[in-house]
Amino acid sequence: MLEKVDLSKKLKKEEAKAKLEKMGVELSHLQRECKAANIPIMIAFEGIGASGKGVQINKLIQALDPRGFDVYTVNRETEEEKMRPFLWRFWSKTPETGRIAIFDRSWYRRVLGDRFEGLTPKKQIPFAFADIRSFEKQLTDDGTVIIKLFLYISKKEQEKRFKKLSENKETAWRVKKEDWDRNKEYKEYLSLCDEMLEQTDFEFAPWTIVEATDKEYAAVKIMNIVIHRLQEALVKKKHRDEIEEQIAKFKTEESFEKTYQIGVLSGVDLSKNLSEKEYKQQLDKLQKKVEILHSELYRRRIPVILAFEGWDAAGKGGAIRRLTSKLDPRGYAVCPTSAANDIERKHHYLWRFWNKMPKAGHIAIFDRTWYGRVMVERIEGFCSTAEWKRAYQEINEMEEHLVNSGAIILKFWMQIDKEEQERRFKDRMETPEKQWKITDEDWRNRAKWDEYEKAVDEMLVRTSTTYAPWTVVEANSKQYARVKVLETVVEAIEKRLKEK
Amino acid sequence: MLEKVDLSKKLKKEEAKAKLEKMGVELSHLQRECKAANIPIMIAFEGIGASGKGVQINKLIQALDPRGFDVYTVNRETEEEKMRPFLWRFWSKTPETGRIAIFDRSWYRRVLGDRFEGLTPKKQIPFAFADIRSFEKQLTDDGTVIIKLFLYISKKEQEKRFKKLSENKETAWRVKKEDWDRNKEYKEYLSLCDEMLEQTDFEFAPWTIVEATDKEYAAVKIMNIVIHRLQEALVKKKHRDEIEEQIAKFKTEESFEKTYQIGVLSGVDLSKNLSEKEYKQQLDKLQKKVEILHSELYRRRIPVILAFEGWDAAGKGGAIRRLTSKLDPRGYAVCPTSAANDIERKHHYLWRFWNKMPKAGHIAIFDRTWYGRVMVERIEGFCSTAEWKRAYQEINEMEEHLVNSGAIILKFWMQIDKEEQERRFKDRMETPEKQWKITDEDWRNRAKWDEYEKAVDEMLVRTSTTYAPWTVVEANSKQYARVKVLETVVEAIEKRLKEK
Repeated sequence: MLEKVDLSKKLKKEEAKAKLEKMGVELSHLQRECKAANIPIMIAFEGIGASGKGVQINKLIQALDPRGFDVYTVNRETEEEKMRPFLWRFWSKTPETGRIAIFDRSWYRRVLGDRFEGLTPKKQIPFAFADIRSFEKQLTDDGTVIIKLFLYISKKEQEKRFKKLSENKETAWRVKKEDWDRNKEYKEYLSLCDEMLEQTDFEFAPWTIVEATDKEYAAVKIMNIVIHRLQEALVKKKHRDEIEEQIAKFKTEESFEKTYQIGVLSGVDLSKNLSEKEYKQQLDKLQKKVEILHSELYRRRIPVILAFEGWDAAGKGGAIRRLTSKLDPRGYAVCPTSAANDIERKHHYLWRFWNKMPKAGHIAIFDRTWYGRVMVERIEGFCSTAEWKRAYQEINEMEEHLVNSGAIILKFWMQIDKEEQERRFKDRMETPEKQWKITDEDWRNRAKWDEYEKAVDEMLVRTSTTYAPWTVVEANSKQYARVKVLETVVEAIEKRLKEK
Repeated sequence: MLEKVDLSKKLKKEEAKAKLEKMGVELSHLQRECKAANIPIMIAFEGIGASGKGVQINKLIQALDPRGFDVYTVNRETEEEKMRPFLWRFWSKTPETGRIAIFDRSWYRRVLGDRFEGLTPKKQIPFAFADIRSFEKQLTDDGTVIIKLFLYISKKEQEKRFKKLSENKETAWRVKKEDWDRNKEYKEYLSLCDEMLEQTDFEFAPWTIVEATDKEYAAVKIMNIVIHRLQEALVKKKHRDEIEEQIAKFKTEESFEKTYQIGVLSGVDLSKNLSEKEYKQQLDKLQKKVEILHSELYRRRIPVILAFEGWDAAGKGGAIRRLTSKLDPRGYAVCPTSAANDIERKHHYLWRFWNKMPKAGHIAIFDRTWYGRVMVERIEGFCSTAEWKRAYQEINEMEEHLVNSGAIILKFWMQIDKEEQERRFKDRMETPEKQWKITDEDWRNRAKWDEYEKAVDEMLVRTSTTYAPWTVVEANSKQYARVKVLETVVEAIEKRLKEK
């Protein structure tokens, strides 16, 4: 449909100037309002080469308070970035609440420029569209405004601009052979743009096509749409808050459901055990295996993500230590997760985990994880009901994205019963060198055992996927648990290595 | 994850009875409230064979006013149904506002039973999941509550039930060889269920797994979740209405955007023309071609959907007549679309079009279409801003579903300019045999030309897809327009027939 768009639109210079000035005041006012309302904003500039993205970004930011925005130029992936899922570098650039992130080219590189140059493998294209959808959906669900602008000029106009730049000594360097090639293949590139617009024109993050032949017209149209979207966001935000509040009131009703929760943990056989001799033998054998597999993973550039969750004192730390004791420390990282800090709280809850995702060939071991959203945050009311209900799908999507980009993901739930926990708590209190491990909070959490069990059961059912399964580890016996964790890891890696 | 679910849950008979009685009163009250609030409800019963779907449906409906619900048993597709996209038979069963539709097995057949029996082609599975997602999303966005229940029993329990049925003379006929086969392959079937739950556990239409070993427990859990979801829906509905209201107030702001609308129609060259001689020659040649192609389509069982939109008096009728004049009337239908009637207004706006979609080998020609949503309904305020904004994506999804199931879709926008329309209107008024064609409403619509142009431009950009493209027909010359329509149809059919 792009080829049908009328590109002749213009605006007189003085008229544009007057409009921009007036709208600039409005925009600057909206920036402050959005900051006060804690709304993060992302503006992506995409478009045909030489359509004037730089010029337009510059015009737009004139009206903004420079302390409130960042501009990112998105070039080809660096070697470092290539070792991660393609959205990784964009997750790390998502703005905190109240800030604006402006992108000169964006995550759409993957399906435009990089695709055109053959840098994106063909079979990755459908995944890329699906991943972009879930990226934008998750952020907008969380309150981010995403404004996507497609700057559009004709083949002839592009040629004219390249010529003009080439004729001037000072700008000639800016036009490279690739650019001329791109101009020749304009039609093919346009059909990629068409497909991209078709696949990603979401109701929650729609595209605006900006006719960019006339710079003044484009500037006014861009300013206009940005203002419009921010006004809309402020209205929506207000309602959203009101709704969440009312739904929060309604929340008490939930206890109604409680008795009929799905049972997973209740069926776990906690009597499983290992003799000291078996334990030592197995441990030794498995640790050696993991060591060898680790270097094979490195050689094959496969990232591994191991997520540990479980009751307090269920033995997560011990299991992780047994798992890593023979590994090369340059190839893995243990990422402990505690409550989110101030900066983290200003971002999407998955943001801090994205930052820690391993690069190709490395292992990241999470001691507590993003599943906090559907356990502690749910139970303590740190997020709204809508938020934790949405989280199951969001987490599945994130894990699917990681797996699509090559990762192995294993998730462990360390299961003990209430009596065993009490024994361990008491032991910790009575043993001086273990006292640091036990706090009042542990006892408080214990008091909410039933609520947690309900949340965990639901979590296991809703997020155990073929691509990222949960393993429930019977952990009343520490020995049994440690061996089971190691075994599961070894099996999963061996299975993957056999695949190709 | 299903294999981990604890299936031992029970409830004492008297306890269950007391609970069901109490909840029945509540449910019956909620049914009335939902009717008053115009909320349509769909309840899908899925699950393992012999898990007691029939029994549970029966228990549930005891509490309902029988005038307010319908129960559908979903068997294998009939020959008639096989000629349509698989969701067609479910779209036609979506309840009108205030009614409840209960499904004994549902659209999930496609990815469960039918898949297991090899009736669903393997490569259709990903499409089926995507189509189910968009089906449920569109309905819930429109206010429908979708409750999905998965009744679950163990392999052993299933075997026990089959045995019991077989031993009794009166029920022995109910257990067939297939059932025993299914019991043997229980594990394989369960893994399909797992994948299905994983792919379709949407935040907007979540699954509830019902442990169905104990019938009393299952009945209470089902009643409980239905009550819970209806309560939630009533709260949400209230807020939704409030929000729509407030956004409606905000709507005037929109004129702001008007000047910077995307231009498609403004670039159309309306001077295109044909001599009378050329016209006759071409028309004759193309009509003969279409006739031949029509029978080839029938033979190959390819459904064709032709959608006509355009300005009043742009010549839709004339073009359709030239297109169909040589066709076998048993193989096509012209579907004129006027304002929705009372019953249609109680359904999703796409419902009435789904009903008219052609079966395999047939052609459906729509004179005005589902695009009314983003034109007249948008401009006259017959739907909310959120609704028409959402519609672009919904329409694209519907068309994609139709194309995935084999259809050819072509959409024509008949374009004339304002002056030409005036000439034709006047001609109609002055020519007695044409007077019926012109009403006051035509003049009223004409007064809103600019608003319509904006809406059409946006529609063309947002809904012209690779799978279902728009053709803008330069129609100031009726001859030129008719030939262009015929040519486009011929080309598209020839292209498809060459594909295999």
